[in-house]
Amino acid sequence: MRLDATAQGVYPIAPTPFHPDGRIDEGSIDRLAEAYIASGATGLTVLGIMGEAPKLEPEEALNIAARFIGGMARLPVIVGVSAPGFAAMRSLARAAMDRGAAGVMIAPVPSLRTDDQIMAYYRQAVEAIGLDIPFVIQDYPLTLSVQMTPKVIRQIVEENPSCVMLKHEDWPGLEKISALRGFQADGSMRPISILTGNGGLFLDFEMERGADGAMTGYAFPEMLVDVVRLQKAGRREEAHDIFDAHVPLLRYEQQQGVGLAVRKYTMMKRGLLTSDAQRKPGSVLSVAARAEVDYLLGRLAKFDRRAAGI
Amino acid sequence: MRLDATAQGVYPIAPTPFHPDGRIDEGSIDRLAEAYIASGATGLTVLGIMGEAPKLEPEEALNIAARFIGGMARLPVIVGVSAPGFAAMRSLARAAMDRGAAGVMIAPVPSLRTDDQIMAYYRQAVEAIGLDIPFVIQDYPLTLSVQMTPKVIRQIVEENPSCVMLKHEDWPGLEKISALRGFQADGSMRPISILTGNGGLFLDFEMERGADGAMTGYAFPEMLVDVVRLQKAGRREEAHDIFDAHVPLLRYEQQQGVGLAVRKYTMMKRGLLTSDAQRKPGSVLSVAARAEVDYLLGRLAKFDRRAAGI
Amino acid sequence: MRLDATAQGVYPIAPTPFHPDGRIDEGSIDRLAEAYIASGATGLTVLGIMGEAPKLEPEEALNIAARFIGGMARLPVIVGVSAPGFAAMRSLARAAMDRGAAGVMIAPVPSLRTDDQIMAYYRQAVEAIGLDIPFVIQDYPLTLSVQMTPKVIRQIVEENPSCVMLKHEDWPGLEKISALRGFQADGSMRPISILTGNGGLFLDFEMERGADGAMTGYAFPEMLVDVVRLQKAGRREEAHDIFDAHVPLLRYEQQQGVGLAVRKYTMMKRGLLTSDAQRKPGSVLSVAARAEVDYLLGRLAKFDRRAAGI
Amino acid sequence: MRLDATAQGVYPIAPTPFHPDGRIDEGSIDRLAEAYIASGATGLTVLGIMGEAPKLEPEEALNIAARFIGGMARLPVIVGVSAPGFAAMRSLARAAMDRGAAGVMIAPVPSLRTDDQIMAYYRQAVEAIGLDIPFVIQDYPLTLSVQMTPKVIRQIVEENPSCVMLKHEDWPGLEKISALRGFQADGSMRPISILTGNGGLFLDFEMERGADGAMTGYAFPEMLVDVVRLQKAGRREEAHDIFDAHVPLLRYEQQQGVGLAVRKYTMMKRGLLTSDAQRKPGSVLSVAARAEVDYLLGRLAKFDRRAAGI
Repeated sequence: MRLDATAQGVYPIAPTPFHPDGRIDEGSIDRLAEAYIASGATGLTVLGIMGEAPKLEPEEALNIAARFIGGMARLPVIVGVSAPGFAAMRSLARAAMDRGAAGVMIAPVPSLRTDDQIMAYYRQAVEAIGLDIPFVIQDYPLTLSVQMTPKVIRQIVEENPSCVMLKHEDWPGLEKISALRGFQADGSMRPISILTGNGGLFLDFEMERGADGAMTGYAFPEMLVDVVRLQKAGRREEAHDIFDAHVPLLRYEQQQGVGLAVRKYTMMKRGLLTSDAQRKPGSVLSVAARAEVDYLLGRLAKFDRRAAGI
Repeated sequence: MRLDATAQGVYPIAPTPFHPDGRIDEGSIDRLAEAYIASGATGLTVLGIMGEAPKLEPEEALNIAARFIGGMARLPVIVGVSAPGFAAMRSLARAAMDRGAAGVMIAPVPSLRTDDQIMAYYRQAVEAIGLDIPFVIQDYPLTLSVQMTPKVIRQIVEENPSCVMLKHEDWPGLEKISALRGFQADGSMRPISILTGNGGLFLDFEMERGADGAMTGYAFPEMLVDVVRLQKAGRREEAHDIFDAHVPLLRYEQQQGVGLAVRKYTMMKRGLLTSDAQRKPGSVLSVAARAEVDYLLGRLAKFDRRAAGI
Repeated sequence: MRLDATAQGVYPIAPTPFHPDGRIDEGSIDRLAEAYIASGATGLTVLGIMGEAPKLEPEEALNIAARFIGGMARLPVIVGVSAPGFAAMRSLARAAMDRGAAGVMIAPVPSLRTDDQIMAYYRQAVEAIGLDIPFVIQDYPLTLSVQMTPKVIRQIVEENPSCVMLKHEDWPGLEKISALRGFQADGSMRPISILTGNGGLFLDFEMERGADGAMTGYAFPEMLVDVVRLQKAGRREEAHDIFDAHVPLLRYEQQQGVGLAVRKYTMMKRGLLTSDAQRKPGSVLSVAARAEVDYLLGRLAKFDRRAAGI
Repeated sequence: MRLDATAQGVYPIAPTPFHPDGRIDEGSIDRLAEAYIASGATGLTVLGIMGEAPKLEPEEALNIAARFIGGMARLPVIVGVSAPGFAAMRSLARAAMDRGAAGVMIAPVPSLRTDDQIMAYYRQAVEAIGLDIPFVIQDYPLTLSVQMTPKVIRQIVEENPSCVMLKHEDWPGLEKISALRGFQADGSMRPISILTGNGGLFLDFEMERGADGAMTGYAFPEMLVDVVRLQKAGRREEAHDIFDAHVPLLRYEQQQGVGLAVRKYTMMKRGLLTSDAQRKPGSVLSVAARAEVDYLLGRLAKFDRRAAGI
């Protein structure tokens, strides 16, 4: 299955599970894949920034991608192939597609500043990986310090037929979704899929602005699935009800720098990961922070999804 | 009344009210002051970043500070005096104290990088304004791009007896509060007041980590007052209940760049401001964004403070 | 005299002279003005970044501008009016024009990121100061962290008839001059004046790429005048000869953060300034650094301008 | 031979030679190594930032390092092992030492901000590569956006016995050398080797401030060797004479972003590289820029080293 511009639903960003000594934890990969399928996810994204991709050796990266692909039972898997050089990007992209990936995701290098530089970068990236691989633009200014205007994104989409999706992660970003859907409406941009990130912190309104779903790694993917489904069904109040129950934890997980530690700890508590270890250099939760996450999980547990009519 | 290190409670960050043509709206200043007193605030902070201070002429700034001071009925008012040069900082600081300010707040200039540069900057600032004016360190890395470690803050506190308070606005910042309270516990730093910012988005846990209160401009200051009071009384669950009811709006207001527009719009809807205008260059809410805020306000209105036992 | 798009030659960036106690040194302003006229400068620029403008009170700024204007004997003086808010920008711009300024210079605020934001900023700035004041775009990414592509500059020029000049200070920036002159050649941009900064470190080639002259504060403005004149006369080798004699000092003065201290010290040694003091916060040369400048000045003194045929 | 704190002289930063199609050009590696030996270099540094290291696959990187080591005839070779993750850093460091490297160079990751973060990073890096590998701190704030104060460097040196050298590349940086040598003089830091970068643009004075030599990739390494030798011999005027003859080209090569293109083009013109190609994404010189380099090389050729008594 190849990714195309009609993709929708939830493509969780998978963390990469490690043992405390830094080895890859393959058992947890399998468990995660099962859990994502059970949560109702439509697909999966691996080797993203929150997948600790830059800390992996090339061979490890490919093995992890392949194992997730194997575990996802034919659901589409997008593989992050961002790299400082196009040689590495190409080799991972082509190898991942050979192993069954549905498409790849490409973030701009942080040194890009001007609109022209950004558009040139994507042209060169597509030239490097080949025209036959569907790709996702990753737009994440807070971490990448690259600012893409709606016009730049439109230009990338128009110049590169293999561009099928935007991973939207600007902050603030709601107006960007409206602007891009406006371009589609006035015929100046062909339709693409827009999935949103930012840990899910604005998913409620992102769906109302025209997003097709979510691509983020929040530790409760079933909430993302519920909100996307309810919003598509026009059940706005219910969508916000379940979303609001999660906001206290969402905002806690969305702290720059410690977010992945919160997320892995939560997933460990939920039985999805054997360990919450990150490869070094990584962040570690203090005792106080773990207690705060425990407290938030306790409060969340009181929220009854069924009572909320979901 | 002079600010000292025992300060606690809530010192809202006041917006500066403008008419749509850019003139200062003095009637709204008076109305805001009344509302802050009614909300239970312990003091007030004016001319902060969210007070659009850099867009004011020196004389305007002083007049605004004086009018807020007059309206606050002897409650302590902190005046932001951050400036690119020490001459302007000194003249505003001394004039504000003459008009009855309780103390001043000083942010580092964005060019500072190293620990030594930051400490030297505060030494020079204190030399400029005089040793007799109590001052607040403003620590806001996301906007100011200056990173102050707990050790640097300790050093500033130890070197400058007139430093009485930290406006804490790091993100993430919970561990910083714990570290500073640890310094006090081990005797390596004298006690100071810590009030927290970030729009209130982490106030629930900041209080549990040892903060003395809040200094932020969230459009519902009475919520900040409630959370601070309940947490100090050990009523943790109730504090989180009321806090959680506000988190959806808090996170919406805490969007970089549009936050002030959300805040002023909300305050206008609440009758506290006649207009939500900002001086140019400023941000403006789209029609869709206004509808989103309206929707969040509608949901918030359903939360009954009394039912929550507050 | 009003600035227009035919401006050329050298418009030195004047430092603001201070006494060691921070007061403005008006005698040195007069001496500087005489020296600039004697050096062959075509005009002057005051209240730039290297003029310590952000450290001045509004009234001081206007007085300094007026005194320089008075001293320059009808040569055109450009006044820097960059400010965080448009109210201050407007009041200084209009007051400076009333006092006889030829035009104003406007730098973008550092928070601008995208092409659209930059263009909108200049539209708003022009709206604020009025359509009747000729203005200069200041393009200085290293310090301002705003990246303007040639296309963005073209757009600003095309949208704003009162834009007459670019102060070019990108690094590297030679291709930018070629691109802009290419736009003029293909008819897509009306002609504007381009004067270059960067302390003069690339003036030799900037002239060959099509610059109209220099706008920078190097402590030997007569060298800038010589290079501009010789290059315009097609005397390339001589231009490089005199330029190369200065490069060791140019590169020393062009050190970020200490450059102004080097420049003021050199000007003091040359008798142009009574003191090399900066207003705080400022930089100070170490004893070793002063000795290095002295050494470079000694070597430079051996270079005989006459022998070089100038 | 293992690198230690007594290292001095010139360790050029080698470019990585590529064929126009992106393949590694091994013939040019051999030719470069011969030329470095002939220039009088004391050692060599490979896989630095200007060696396009991030664009190499791990196996390629190791092969390049090994080939340079083989070509350098027992002169010490330092291998850059900077990486986003410690796993990759460790594997390259240990493999390079196995192939005969003298030591490794480690740059901080760009996300580090505070003094404590920087020191912790180096502790973790040393733990990862092992205590037995001599390493060099790479201090290059302009590109890496990490600011290390002299105190932080001292702390890293004191905490990690395997730290033997600082690659000094701050800008401005002269005072940093003086501060570090001051720490050695007052006994608070053990002696380390300091080699300087910045393309050599301040080498004249860096030697006078106490540097032990140069580590930079300027296309005329013999000039670096001459200046270091003459300054050590106390022949100051001669050192400056030869240095000044190169400053026009040095400053041209030191333009951010295009510097490597200038350097490779010059080396190609000198017969050291078969092609000036960079791996993508890379920079390319315009026709005008090539002509400018040609012109500078022509002027430089007139300078007679023998006449200068070298």
